[in-house]
Amino acid sequence: MERRKFLTTAALGTAATALAAPAIAQGGPQVAWRLTSGFPRTLDTIFGAAEVFSATVAAATDGAFQIQVFPAGEILPMPEAAEAVGNGTVEMAHTASYYYWGKDPTYALGTAIPFGLNARGTNAWHYHGGGIELMNEFYATQNLYGLPGGNTGAQMGGWFRKEISSLADLQGVKMRIGGMGGKIMERLGAVPQQIPGGDIYPALERGTIDAAEWVGPYDDQKLGFNQVAPYYYYPGFWEGGPVLSFLINLDKWNELTPAYQAVVTAAAAQANVGMMAKYDALNPTALRELVAGGAQLKPYPQDVMEAAFAASNEVYAEISAENAMFAKIYDSYSKFRNDQNLWFQVSEYTFDTFMIRNRPRD
Amino acid sequence: MERRKFLTTAALGTAATALAAPAIAQGGPQVAWRLTSGFPRTLDTIFGAAEVFSATVAAATDGAFQIQVFPAGEILPMPEAAEAVGNGTVEMAHTASYYYWGKDPTYALGTAIPFGLNARGTNAWHYHGGGIELMNEFYATQNLYGLPGGNTGAQMGGWFRKEISSLADLQGVKMRIGGMGGKIMERLGAVPQQIPGGDIYPALERGTIDAAEWVGPYDDQKLGFNQVAPYYYYPGFWEGGPVLSFLINLDKWNELTPAYQAVVTAAAAQANVGMMAKYDALNPTALRELVAGGAQLKPYPQDVMEAAFAASNEVYAEISAENAMFAKIYDSYSKFRNDQNLWFQVSEYTFDTFMIRNRPRD
Repeated sequence: MERRKFLTTAALGTAATALAAPAIAQGGPQVAWRLTSGFPRTLDTIFGAAEVFSATVAAATDGAFQIQVFPAGEILPMPEAAEAVGNGTVEMAHTASYYYWGKDPTYALGTAIPFGLNARGTNAWHYHGGGIELMNEFYATQNLYGLPGGNTGAQMGGWFRKEISSLADLQGVKMRIGGMGGKIMERLGAVPQQIPGGDIYPALERGTIDAAEWVGPYDDQKLGFNQVAPYYYYPGFWEGGPVLSFLINLDKWNELTPAYQAVVTAAAAQANVGMMAKYDALNPTALRELVAGGAQLKPYPQDVMEAAFAASNEVYAEISAENAMFAKIYDSYSKFRNDQNLWFQVSEYTFDTFMIRNRPRD
Repeated sequence: MERRKFLTTAALGTAATALAAPAIAQGGPQVAWRLTSGFPRTLDTIFGAAEVFSATVAAATDGAFQIQVFPAGEILPMPEAAEAVGNGTVEMAHTASYYYWGKDPTYALGTAIPFGLNARGTNAWHYHGGGIELMNEFYATQNLYGLPGGNTGAQMGGWFRKEISSLADLQGVKMRIGGMGGKIMERLGAVPQQIPGGDIYPALERGTIDAAEWVGPYDDQKLGFNQVAPYYYYPGFWEGGPVLSFLINLDKWNELTPAYQAVVTAAAAQANVGMMAKYDALNPTALRELVAGGAQLKPYPQDVMEAAFAASNEVYAEISAENAMFAKIYDSYSKFRNDQNLWFQVSEYTFDTFMIRNRPRD
């Protein structure tokens, strides 16, 4: 605790120094914000999306609007970020809203829910399916304003020490998985565990846990899971197209000039499309190297997928029965998802299928 | 011709009036640009992406940077847009770069080529696969600077008066299709036709042509093709993920302040992700209505797909042999595509497959 206090103070000092550089141009009012990321610097693609955002805001305002980006834990631990933004301790966060689903499950709908929309559908719902407006109805109750801020695409389904051939093999499996995915895995008979990223490898190595999910090839490779848990399952059905959020204190958002609001909105969209593009560019090489390094790619067995789908629908019905805001937004989200899949199965899916089948083998 | 001259003058008058409103805030230098769209207003999703872009640039600069958006033909016909931007007749265009492939086939790589990248892969290549940099090496030879500016997703494969059961049925079919897609169709035995959008319906109705491709359900529905050519084929393999371009006169781009360049770059990215999202939100309902209105959805026969794929690869080899710039960029593009399909086939494709199969039927 003392150490964190020290780090916090030191970080504030750094921020103050960095902000001392004056904006030299004509332009809008001087604004200095702090952004707490929900992620460490080691997740450079995710963390980097906040840096891209901040750099664009600064450049577009001739340096007048500065947003200092701090990794998780430097000024605030990740679990406190949403609340700290809401109460104004920090002006904004770049995080996954579903991290805060324990406070209200409606938060999860801002990022992803099991068997939800893929990445493109997630954008379609947010930008043109009423998603941003609906989520902001909820965020307003938390004194927040939110914008989509970067997608990973369908994540991988995690690393297992032993092969999972059917639902029976999941019974009692201790798996590092949080959020709604953990809740679903629990209903399937697994035992979800909450472990910070840096502790996963030794826990898998020692057998303290049997499995762990992280992100996808690019991020997973850095942690070396293939060396201790070689079965690499897909898809991460609880994260088919998770999108991060820029969460902004609602009062601070309302205080911005219309020009600054326009800059923030465009910069967030740029970070959103850019992060997905960066993951797609980085993942193929990492996947090849992981497979060369012993990872064994396995699809989840069909009975696991079906049981998880059924359990997810049960959970949504249960939450909807007791949470009107969740029910309202889930209704929009799930109908939109079904329509997206109707449309995707025609031209997109047929095109992708042909291209995948005809990929030159190497 | 006289009519176009009149319209041109009138349009300039309107632009001048609109620009007379002063920027009231402090801020950057006053800049007034004209943007010629490659599309009519009736393609509201595509045309609208330029309006979204222009509105963001104006809002983010407190009205100091105004970009007037004109539909195709109002100040310039679409085929002249790229050249007119390059020589400074107009500051910028929002168009499909592949429209100008007759001038140099390298233009096609900025939008889409047959059996190219899907929409997400297109973004990945442009933003993080070197695509923007490579295309701008080429665009610089045309005195242009380009940025991605909106995707349609995999387009549909067009409307046919008669069913196509195999490659043999394509022989002699007069099909309205332009660009590289037309070149491929020609190698397959069809007879490509160039017809403006508004003339397609009567040509199909009278049987002057046998088939026509346009965009996808949302745009196709407005033209009513299902009433005269009920066989609706997919996928549009020549446009698996076509992205529009904002093409800017290179000198004008270089004259912009760094802040304005940052605003334009972010606004273009916002328009890019927003247009794809809007199409995805609009297409499902249009698809349902088209099917209810008699459209018969049909996948292209496998032998058509395979012959088209082989013909495309032949065409790329031929062009590459005589055009070094095309060869260089195609090499990057096609390797990137193969890697994307390696990665997509794992988690994304498995997730999409499950979701499509488990979509509630309605």
